[in-house]
Amino acid sequence: MKKIIGGVTAAKGFEAAGIAAEIKYKGRTDMAIVYSQKPCVAAGTFTTNVAKAAPVKWDQVQVKDVAHAQAIIVNSGIANACTGAEGYGYCKETADTAAEILGIPADSVLLGSTGVIGKQLPMNRIKAGVAKLAEAKKAAIEAGTEAAKAIMTTDTCEKEIAVEIEVGGKTVTVGGMAKGSGMIHPNMCTMLSFITTDAAISKSALQKALSDDVNDTYNMISVDGDTSTNDTVLVLANGMAENTEIVEGSEDYKIFAEALHVVNEYLAKKIAGDGEGATALFEVNIVGAETKEQAKLLAKAIACSNLTKTAIAGHDANWGRIICAMGYSGAQFDPEKVDLFFESEAGKIQIAEDGVAVDYSEEKATEILSQPVVIATADVKMGDAKATAWGCDLTHAYIEINADYRS
Amino acid sequence: MKKIIGGVTAAKGFEAAGIAAEIKYKGRTDMAIVYSQKPCVAAGTFTTNVAKAAPVKWDQVQVKDVAHAQAIIVNSGIANACTGAEGYGYCKETADTAAEILGIPADSVLLGSTGVIGKQLPMNRIKAGVAKLAEAKKAAIEAGTEAAKAIMTTDTCEKEIAVEIEVGGKTVTVGGMAKGSGMIHPNMCTMLSFITTDAAISKSALQKALSDDVNDTYNMISVDGDTSTNDTVLVLANGMAENTEIVEGSEDYKIFAEALHVVNEYLAKKIAGDGEGATALFEVNIVGAETKEQAKLLAKAIACSNLTKTAIAGHDANWGRIICAMGYSGAQFDPEKVDLFFESEAGKIQIAEDGVAVDYSEEKATEILSQPVVIATADVKMGDAKATAWGCDLTHAYIEINADYRS
Repeated sequence: MKKIIGGVTAAKGFEAAGIAAEIKYKGRTDMAIVYSQKPCVAAGTFTTNVAKAAPVKWDQVQVKDVAHAQAIIVNSGIANACTGAEGYGYCKETADTAAEILGIPADSVLLGSTGVIGKQLPMNRIKAGVAKLAEAKKAAIEAGTEAAKAIMTTDTCEKEIAVEIEVGGKTVTVGGMAKGSGMIHPNMCTMLSFITTDAAISKSALQKALSDDVNDTYNMISVDGDTSTNDTVLVLANGMAENTEIVEGSEDYKIFAEALHVVNEYLAKKIAGDGEGATALFEVNIVGAETKEQAKLLAKAIACSNLTKTAIAGHDANWGRIICAMGYSGAQFDPEKVDLFFESEAGKIQIAEDGVAVDYSEEKATEILSQPVVIATADVKMGDAKATAWGCDLTHAYIEINADYRS
Repeated sequence: MKKIIGGVTAAKGFEAAGIAAEIKYKGRTDMAIVYSQKPCVAAGTFTTNVAKAAPVKWDQVQVKDVAHAQAIIVNSGIANACTGAEGYGYCKETADTAAEILGIPADSVLLGSTGVIGKQLPMNRIKAGVAKLAEAKKAAIEAGTEAAKAIMTTDTCEKEIAVEIEVGGKTVTVGGMAKGSGMIHPNMCTMLSFITTDAAISKSALQKALSDDVNDTYNMISVDGDTSTNDTVLVLANGMAENTEIVEGSEDYKIFAEALHVVNEYLAKKIAGDGEGATALFEVNIVGAETKEQAKLLAKAIACSNLTKTAIAGHDANWGRIICAMGYSGAQFDPEKVDLFFESEAGKIQIAEDGVAVDYSEEKATEILSQPVVIATADVKMGDAKATAWGCDLTHAYIEINADYRS
């Protein structure tokens, strides 16, 4: 596997664009298209939130029931969530508009929205935006980056990645883009992530590869514990790499699934590290667990703890908060057996042994905790299972961003 | 029922004191005693956190196995959590010291600790503190207030209440004190709460009244979603009101349980409203639910949502975050049937009807959300069950307090 430059336009036959439609923001782009020159097999995973946004409901139907997808239209600024029948109608209207302009069936148009909840989309601007996107879309790498920028809300940087693998003698590319960065506590998948590949792959294999992988990637990150109404991951595969079709259980499937994992994990970590107001990516490793499920519960509880996250923000080795979070995670373990370590590019130190503090240097701990990527590892000494979760620190900027987000 | 002045010393035969032992803080009190002139029936509920603090383990044994309790010794500054066998040994040492000085059995001494996790208690100061407490304890109302002040950590004010009821022609008093104000997301009971009563009541009736009531009071508050290692509620009943012993199922039991509820709810709300950095108590009512369990899940999800809490801090009617939190609560409901209202001393307005925004005044909403007590009510229109949860807003001060709490 080789990491290459690019995102959603890295794979053969994919085009993209990002344009300014003035949905809510001024002076920036806020609509994006991902378009495939050929119809695609599609897979998706969506929020488990009962209050699903209209575009989530739209995509669920299309991904499940429709054979081929060819375009994704995304807007930022307004989430089209809590908008009732009117909001769902706007999904149909957007898809109809895109279908007509692009000359494809309306049910091959997938949708994504992100931004403020409870407001209706300004449909005149959305429709004008779709026309501009159809005009602007290109296969260039830069066009993928433009799309990745247009879907940002409070994100501070675009998030994209592409990798190349070899499948049956053919070069297959998998690329993707995602956005965070608040209301991030995915329970199925994250806010918005769009993956493209030129692999030829069966619909069921694509869906299985995605569904399996979100549990170890997007579902293991958290910014603020709030599971969004809009969480969506979509994968489009257009087959233009001309490999023999990948089916479940094959060697090719394993190679493809690993490439998809690399893309998903990269994007998930980018979302966590660029959480609202974050100054550090906080990686939590649980090792020595009895089961993977137990390791995941423990890792997520630590990554989600407001108190642990504020301690990271303060570069303070307040390790008791980590044991505390493990304690209420729902997983059983012996707190008096836990070994705890902090690690970053500044070094690695042990903080606790068998659940009590060792004689570590607070100065060194603070130095380690002051880096942009901070890793905490807890060994519960019960078995061989492990899991990793990703979060970020909780800072003043999170409050600033969210105390008055709508204005 | 009559609310009267006082706290843990309001009931007959109870004495208290708060003194400075320099456990961690300078220039303030940090040890308290609650003492009964006669042996008491005791009841307790404790954190469900797997990583239980040493004093929690100590109290669990005493409350369950020992017939009578007579004193509670509490320190703030250090939580005696994650301290292993050494920390538990210090519990025994503290109880032995208190027993000797007070002339009571060691197993009638209950303990509470609150503060930083992972540090050992300075036992010389603790022992000197116990001696000072034994000397200083008084039955005066002010002595109860001194105890309530000494158990504070990041609390901004002491929390106490007392009520009088009539039981079989006798006046019975129930009083209590509690402290928050971070790591507050009780799952059994809250950080520390101590209730005293002169009621004559059976041990089983006292425990049942407490266990039933914590589910509607302490277990319905949250400051930061972190379930503490130290959560403890203790009730001591010394029988000095000379009423006929209250037993389960009687009319007197109902009267007593209601008084206990008033005391618990008052203290729980005080803890939520005085959450770290909070400027507002945030009360969340769910009405029209199918079951109480469903109503509780919905109410707690809203009260715990970081995004909702920062919106309250910003006086911003970002109601979509409330529907979103309900959506990931785990409870089933129809988001497109929810009516939503905001209320405070500045008035009441409807924000959403059937899950979509009504045409409300943002200016009025901001005025309502700028008060010290803000109430959100969601009607899910499914039945008659309801529940209330209490939280607080999430502000810069929370970050300030917690980014470097240990220093």
